[in-house]
Amino acid sequence: MDEMKILTFAGSLRKESLNKKLCQQVVNFLQAQKLADAEWIDLRDLEIPLYDEDIESTHGDGTPALVPIGVQKLWTQVQEADALILASPEYNGAISGVMKNTLDWISRKKPSPIAGKHVLFLAASQGALGGVRGLWHTRVPFEAVGCHVYPEMLGIPQAHQVFDGDGKIKDEVTKQRLEKLLQNFVHFLQ
Amino acid sequence: MDEMKILTFAGSLRKESLNKKLCQQVVNFLQAQKLADAEWIDLRDLEIPLYDEDIESTHGDGTPALVPIGVQKLWTQVQEADALILASPEYNGAISGVMKNTLDWISRKKPSPIAGKHVLFLAASQGALGGVRGLWHTRVPFEAVGCHVYPEMLGIPQAHQVFDGDGKIKDEVTKQRLEKLLQNFVHFLQ
Amino acid sequence: MDEMKILTFAGSLRKESLNKKLCQQVVNFLQAQKLADAEWIDLRDLEIPLYDEDIESTHGDGTPALVPIGVQKLWTQVQEADALILASPEYNGAISGVMKNTLDWISRKKPSPIAGKHVLFLAASQGALGGVRGLWHTRVPFEAVGCHVYPEMLGIPQAHQVFDGDGKIKDEVTKQRLEKLLQNFVHFLQ
Amino acid sequence: MDEMKILTFAGSLRKESLNKKLCQQVVNFLQAQKLADAEWIDLRDLEIPLYDEDIESTHGDGTPALVPIGVQKLWTQVQEADALILASPEYNGAISGVMKNTLDWISRKKPSPIAGKHVLFLAASQGALGGVRGLWHTRVPFEAVGCHVYPEMLGIPQAHQVFDGDGKIKDEVTKQRLEKLLQNFVHFLQ
Repeated sequence: MDEMKILTFAGSLRKESLNKKLCQQVVNFLQAQKLADAEWIDLRDLEIPLYDEDIESTHGDGTPALVPIGVQKLWTQVQEADALILASPEYNGAISGVMKNTLDWISRKKPSPIAGKHVLFLAASQGALGGVRGLWHTRVPFEAVGCHVYPEMLGIPQAHQVFDGDGKIKDEVTKQRLEKLLQNFVHFLQ
Repeated sequence: MDEMKILTFAGSLRKESLNKKLCQQVVNFLQAQKLADAEWIDLRDLEIPLYDEDIESTHGDGTPALVPIGVQKLWTQVQEADALILASPEYNGAISGVMKNTLDWISRKKPSPIAGKHVLFLAASQGALGGVRGLWHTRVPFEAVGCHVYPEMLGIPQAHQVFDGDGKIKDEVTKQRLEKLLQNFVHFLQ
Repeated sequence: MDEMKILTFAGSLRKESLNKKLCQQVVNFLQAQKLADAEWIDLRDLEIPLYDEDIESTHGDGTPALVPIGVQKLWTQVQEADALILASPEYNGAISGVMKNTLDWISRKKPSPIAGKHVLFLAASQGALGGVRGLWHTRVPFEAVGCHVYPEMLGIPQAHQVFDGDGKIKDEVTKQRLEKLLQNFVHFLQ
Repeated sequence: MDEMKILTFAGSLRKESLNKKLCQQVVNFLQAQKLADAEWIDLRDLEIPLYDEDIESTHGDGTPALVPIGVQKLWTQVQEADALILASPEYNGAISGVMKNTLDWISRKKPSPIAGKHVLFLAASQGALGGVRGLWHTRVPFEAVGCHVYPEMLGIPQAHQVFDGDGKIKDEVTKQRLEKLLQNFVHFLQ
């Protein structure tokens, strides 16, 4: 079959985000193993504003042309992907505001670019629990817009000690758990 | 006892937001009935950006002075309030990104300005269900930061037909349900 | 391909349960349309007790032979099914105790008979909202045991007026929504 | 003020349940410190069946007399308590079926014996995470029936190593965290 297109992005903006590093390692592994045509986008580059219906209705007339450029780009990339792999921090036991705001914008396009897509959730966290509680909260709105959320998830605790200076995962156990999960997910997609 | 200070704000930004109108009616009622010293703030005026740790660490040195001014204002107002009444739309069956992003900023201050506060949630929605499912998702991170969330909530369905041209609630049944809930909440606080 | 085996059961016990009727209509439709080899089981017949680890350890020695017969039957039937269609009432905004207790027993078998199965959730409710809020709570533990929960769900409000004396769905709109959803689910499975 | 009445019970049935032991330690501490008039009930003794509406309607005529005796006892005890402290295991990332079934029965009485009560949730777990994820799922239906759920919760990980042969908490850090939380909860109630 044709190679699967997988889009990855992180639910945090800061440059040294552990979840961005995680996305990059996912892309590297999927490409190196020829498991998928994987791409990472940095939400910071898209400069997506906080959702405000007036942005659409004041500057817009219902045509996508007047929606923020970054949002339009994301619509296209989500639409073209066969599946998403999203890495998101846990803020206050829940979804990050950045991730939720991104989904709120994605869901404004009709027909939906994200309905029916398969999604795998990952988290990197400096805490002891790896952000998995946040992921259980994060799943909900993605399922509500029609995503097939993969049951298994991976939260990486103490993640600030897990990546080396080049952003590679130096902890062998974590690396193997991640790679096994990615293989299972791609296998499931096929 | 001294008059209770209650802060209200809405989880959406657009000018004609139904949830902003709801906040204003809450303030009007509480003031008119001398139930509380109530205040509404418009998040749009605070110009709070999407949460980005680099904003704190690049422009900041750990002192609150370099955090966005709007965030600092909100910290003070939340801190000074005895309780919060929050009106928030349901986006994709869940918390609005704007509301979550606001909470993510609030929770960055130590000691927490919001822990231990009592919170009442309301929702105005153009849909048939009134946004209550979204409120159940919205409660979670507020509880996680230590808020006492009031069990009863009110979702107003078909809310675009409920307010008149002056932003007053013209539907008598809805008006009475709201006023009864506000009275119960203030009574509980006392 | 071979015909898909689909198992259905309801999360309530009473004889005239609306959710049991819904299960039966699901089976009738899937069989009549030759969409799947579908079977309904009545949890009441299985006489599954409340979960109590002492039942396993007192009467049992780790071999399945001493687990309640009804639980063992259910293990086998879940294991043999390709997918599950579950209809469950909403009790107190959440999963029914009967459904959760059933899952708690199912999850005791190793290797898991339910991990990796696709599940579609339905609800019949006498209320105005159709029990969908309860289903969002019901999804969580099924996802936690590794099920692929289908994103779309169907809640039937005022369900006591929807079935005729023979247990058939007399409301044409509801009937068509259900049948369309079942077709989509089976199509997705294939 | 008069002494507060606090009722405690556990969401599991087995005799050696860690959550039952936890309840007993809670009662011992509250009594010894004269913080409250605390009582523990063992759900096993109440012999509450799985909820089945036919039990009410077949054997019953709407009068409480024909509801299972254990349920009626629980109704009275919940009604007479000022607050509840509940210890519940996490099963499949969610509420235990036993706890949910118990709440389903409690909620059948009108007027509600549990609405407006304050509830503190604890969990003892053999796992590494202490069952807190399950507690976040457990809160939901209690809030839906009108309980004021205390924001802070305590999950005790590796709990099988935490109790000594007499059921006392031998781990000093855990003991102090529990006692501090109980003091805070009682202080909040007052």
